[in-house]
Amino acid sequence: MKPPSPPDPSLLSLNTATVRAQWTMPQIVDALVRHGIRGIAPWRDQVAQAGLMDTARRIRDAGLAVTCYCRGGMFTATDAAGLRAARDDNRRAVDEALALGARCLVLVVGGLPKDSKGAPASRDLGGARGMVRDGIGALLDYAKPAGMPLAIEPLHPMFAADRACVNTLAQANDLCDELAPGEGPALGVIVDVYHVWWDPCLEREIARAGAAQRLLDYHLCDWLVPTKDMLNDRGMMGDGVIELARIRGWMEAAGYRGAHEVEIFSERWWKVPGDDVLATCKARYAGAC
Amino acid sequence: MKPPSPPDPSLLSLNTATVRAQWTMPQIVDALVRHGIRGIAPWRDQVAQAGLMDTARRIRDAGLAVTCYCRGGMFTATDAAGLRAARDDNRRAVDEALALGARCLVLVVGGLPKDSKGAPASRDLGGARGMVRDGIGALLDYAKPAGMPLAIEPLHPMFAADRACVNTLAQANDLCDELAPGEGPALGVIVDVYHVWWDPCLEREIARAGAAQRLLDYHLCDWLVPTKDMLNDRGMMGDGVIELARIRGWMEAAGYRGAHEVEIFSERWWKVPGDDVLATCKARYAGAC
Repeated sequence: MKPPSPPDPSLLSLNTATVRAQWTMPQIVDALVRHGIRGIAPWRDQVAQAGLMDTARRIRDAGLAVTCYCRGGMFTATDAAGLRAARDDNRRAVDEALALGARCLVLVVGGLPKDSKGAPASRDLGGARGMVRDGIGALLDYAKPAGMPLAIEPLHPMFAADRACVNTLAQANDLCDELAPGEGPALGVIVDVYHVWWDPCLEREIARAGAAQRLLDYHLCDWLVPTKDMLNDRGMMGDGVIELARIRGWMEAAGYRGAHEVEIFSERWWKVPGDDVLATCKARYAGAC
Repeated sequence: MKPPSPPDPSLLSLNTATVRAQWTMPQIVDALVRHGIRGIAPWRDQVAQAGLMDTARRIRDAGLAVTCYCRGGMFTATDAAGLRAARDDNRRAVDEALALGARCLVLVVGGLPKDSKGAPASRDLGGARGMVRDGIGALLDYAKPAGMPLAIEPLHPMFAADRACVNTLAQANDLCDELAPGEGPALGVIVDVYHVWWDPCLEREIARAGAAQRLLDYHLCDWLVPTKDMLNDRGMMGDGVIELARIRGWMEAAGYRGAHEVEIFSERWWKVPGDDVLATCKARYAGAC
């Protein structure tokens, strides 16, 4: 079921990681206005560098939608002090997301607990998943009264050890069912094609999330063959093998009407002038998504 | 549920890819005898280089169990000629597996169809999965009367585009249910920890495969953090983050009593003298699996 027409240009959003090497946050906001792109998804480190209040004002003045805020999560730790530090940092992320007027806070949930040097300190994957469940549940108590939806982003299974031990949309949906049954968008999911395109259950799980009002954001890029680096070799839409129009059709059939956010971590695209990256994103969005 | 005792040394087997850079097939057979390892899983190219009949004789004379034969599969193609070529090649693989006395023929099912240069020629992942289903079904008609079990190996989702579009044990179990309902080991699965360790449904799907008499082989290595190369940076058991003893416990609880086969694709271990590799495999098998 591919959609018959190109996606709505007004839904296009840019995740700021896509041009993090080229531009500061003020430059990104200006560029989005220049290119007529109406949405932005800022990363915390880029916001911190530019200043939270200055960034919030610039985004507001430019009339941009903040389609998500990247990111909270990293709930796993080796001890109680680490878990408390994660809790406190996640509360700050909720506060920042509120200040920016973000539609949701992305949760990249963390992998196996790490030692002080960043190496895995445990092999207990089930235990890590338990910490993630508890961490999301506790953060929900803080975010829900504040009105900030939390969006669980399942990451590709190749990141299970070091970045996120939630690795399928089914697993994210199960967490939503367990932690916030019947509560719709207070706790939802992000569908990033890079992470989930391979999943034989994808159509079914998108429909399941949509029926529960839990589709909070949709991230675009492409899967290159070969993929030379797991983290920083994502492709521009149309350059890889993901059936983007088909997955968009599943999202639309599930009732999703939110943003289509381009997030490309790529050593290659980070070397291209930012205006060329945005022009390419717009063209590919119209022609290959 | 971790098993209380180390695994049975007599179940240890060596996949010949582990020492493909160091040794010829005759040298591998001799080395296994020298190290007291009782099983072997040969690759087709290594067998072809040494000669099928010579290899079969050496393995028989050495009294080794052939725990699987690597590999058939690659069922996807862009046209009918390509599909016929895959069919013919897979039948030859069945014949070779029979000549070697292998317990099963591994199926790495193929990813998206490729053009003549090996690049993806399609984005139709669902279509590729249909070709795989049809290809396995047709091969089963050839292999089952001959008495050679076919073993579907789900590959890690990061290989969905270029190597295998069966990416979870659930998907492999579903294929078995569809193509060979109630037929037990004529069509089964291989559990390779490298490909499935991350799967939140792993324990359940191992139990499901075991209940249907479909656990045909068990492959060991480890997942390194970081993994620097998707294909050739697998770890020696104990050097990574996979809970090997726990997964073995799930296999044993599901009734599996077959081989524990070490298969390590690793640029690092291919540079180590073969006798040191085998000694390390034995030590780690006893202490970390």
